[in-house]
Amino acid sequence: MKVKYNLIKKEKDTEARLGTLETNYGTYETPMFMPVGTQATVKTLSPEEVKACKPGIILANTYHLWLRPGEDVVDHAGGLHKFMNWDGPILTDSGGFQVFSLAKPKDITEEGVHFKNIYNGDNLLLTPEKSIEIQNKLDSDIAMSFDECVGFPHTREYVEESVERTLRWAERGKKVFNNERQSLFGIVQGAEYEDLRKHCVEELVKMDFDGYSIGGTAVGEPKNVQYKQVEYSCKYLPKDKVRYLMGVGDPIDIIENVIRGVDIFDCVAPTRLARHGHFYTMQGKGNIKNAKYKEDFTPIEEECDCYACKNYTKAYIRHLIRAEETFGQRLLSIHNIRFLIRLTEEIRKAIQEDRLLEYRENFIKNYYEEEGE
Amino acid sequence: MKVKYNLIKKEKDTEARLGTLETNYGTYETPMFMPVGTQATVKTLSPEEVKACKPGIILANTYHLWLRPGEDVVDHAGGLHKFMNWDGPILTDSGGFQVFSLAKPKDITEEGVHFKNIYNGDNLLLTPEKSIEIQNKLDSDIAMSFDECVGFPHTREYVEESVERTLRWAERGKKVFNNERQSLFGIVQGAEYEDLRKHCVEELVKMDFDGYSIGGTAVGEPKNVQYKQVEYSCKYLPKDKVRYLMGVGDPIDIIENVIRGVDIFDCVAPTRLARHGHFYTMQGKGNIKNAKYKEDFTPIEEECDCYACKNYTKAYIRHLIRAEETFGQRLLSIHNIRFLIRLTEEIRKAIQEDRLLEYRENFIKNYYEEEGE
Repeated sequence: MKVKYNLIKKEKDTEARLGTLETNYGTYETPMFMPVGTQATVKTLSPEEVKACKPGIILANTYHLWLRPGEDVVDHAGGLHKFMNWDGPILTDSGGFQVFSLAKPKDITEEGVHFKNIYNGDNLLLTPEKSIEIQNKLDSDIAMSFDECVGFPHTREYVEESVERTLRWAERGKKVFNNERQSLFGIVQGAEYEDLRKHCVEELVKMDFDGYSIGGTAVGEPKNVQYKQVEYSCKYLPKDKVRYLMGVGDPIDIIENVIRGVDIFDCVAPTRLARHGHFYTMQGKGNIKNAKYKEDFTPIEEECDCYACKNYTKAYIRHLIRAEETFGQRLLSIHNIRFLIRLTEEIRKAIQEDRLLEYRENFIKNYYEEEGE
Repeated sequence: MKVKYNLIKKEKDTEARLGTLETNYGTYETPMFMPVGTQATVKTLSPEEVKACKPGIILANTYHLWLRPGEDVVDHAGGLHKFMNWDGPILTDSGGFQVFSLAKPKDITEEGVHFKNIYNGDNLLLTPEKSIEIQNKLDSDIAMSFDECVGFPHTREYVEESVERTLRWAERGKKVFNNERQSLFGIVQGAEYEDLRKHCVEELVKMDFDGYSIGGTAVGEPKNVQYKQVEYSCKYLPKDKVRYLMGVGDPIDIIENVIRGVDIFDCVAPTRLARHGHFYTMQGKGNIKNAKYKEDFTPIEEECDCYACKNYTKAYIRHLIRAEETFGQRLLSIHNIRFLIRLTEEIRKAIQEDRLLEYRENFIKNYYEEEGE
């Protein structure tokens, strides 16, 4: 089935939306945070552990799975759900962001993007058609159109050209899309130019996608630019379709962008930070390697309901991380993912009760930036 | 409480013993295989995952925990069980094997072993008293006497001297031992010399330990030498105490040494092999990276009841290991530990039914050495 977005309520003072998204694997509340399973696994976690964090959708990366193990292996396994033992909804990206950020050198033509396979040096070409073909085979629940993700900074001239190319690519992808149980999202580009975002949205809406993603974020732009990009996209996006902001997952950014009308987020930060010993709390980020935790026999967050906080102390997790034991990375990954999902639970409650601006104010007041080691 | 060994039956044609061991955390059948949790964690696994492999005791390393996080941290946490969230029995080694294999340079004196801390270069001295003091604080269920682990090859003269030193160290350790709920094992040394093994056993038995370990194995000796060392130790060990062969865990070695009278084994191999993509089957070892598993959508072993075999295919685990995802290492670690425990379950059944020699013959016939990649 195609995903179906139901708007439950718009918050009184902001553009924030409380809603539900119906998928092949159940209905989930939005705003939501999606854990990232880049290579068909959420790093260090089992599917059961991811489930226990109570996510809605998880994300997998088309670029990585195309190169390894290859979409045919996943197809022959019976699709991504069966391959990775995940019975919840999966969203795949288009590979666009990875091609632009990881594949170097690259050559962007009308046809697509030429680049070298990082594993064996082979020349590869990712086109809108190829991206869709791979995603159709991966058999995720939601696929993304192949877009050009423009970095920051950039010139207006380049973004103008690029938006048109992204629109032509969206159309080409839609034309070859061939998977009945999969939804297809269009990606809004246009950088921080309101007229380009508006134009991009309008053209995408004519093509009638099942949902819309906001791209060109998480490429090194300042926060105020990111918030503008989101504002200029949401302003024109249809109310009856879900909106996914790609690659953004900082706690404050989640709150700010929900306020601007975003429904879905994803980010590798919770698992990446965990692997380096960092953890979130509602009072800010910490680093478990800090000497002050040596004999701290309390959980990371007393009020957290995750497996790590229910069963382990900071002293033990500190020991594991210092000893480079993967179980430590796992415990922090569980906590960090659950943290961002708890954050979205609190946000949904604040929308329900029309007090999101107050929630933001209190959150920012309490939230300190990372402490040193 | 002190552990209590109950001999249920000796096998008809061999020295193999079926028994039970009563511990602070329940009674377990022997022969048994102990998973190794070097740094207060069985590498890549949660306590729940280790439990699901159905082990009896697990092992933790005194040397590693002494250096990091330090025995005082574990003590202040309430002991090793609480620190690592493990509510089953734990055996700690004496640090002797690690000092001899990892700490270089070292200087062996009557007092103990001088060496450098690998983490910060500090000069350290591990003595029989210190080893016991650390283990008393770690509060494991079974502690080991500090012994000199002689390498292979060696001279008879050196082993003679060393056995006497090990006996003096055992006595010194016993004298300072001070933990009511902990048991203390003596370690039999004497290399492959029957008279020295006999002498060592007799002197240790006079000191009356709660169980006996067989040391000087897993130091590079040929298999036939190892089997002799075990035979010459078990021949003189008391029937009413449990016997633990340190560091041995190859499937065929487990069978051979059970036949010679061993009750308990431990080895890092199942988790170490797993991290490199290797897995056990009753037909021999394999390497998941092998190209033939690319589209093999069957479990590692159809007849295995572990989490990995119940839920994942070789193709998926191969993908994870190739992509260096720790979840792949975890799945293979679960399988490999459960494999060795299943092996001991089969061995116990064969002892019960007086057909252990037949079991050995069939096992060896079917068990191939590692395939190439």
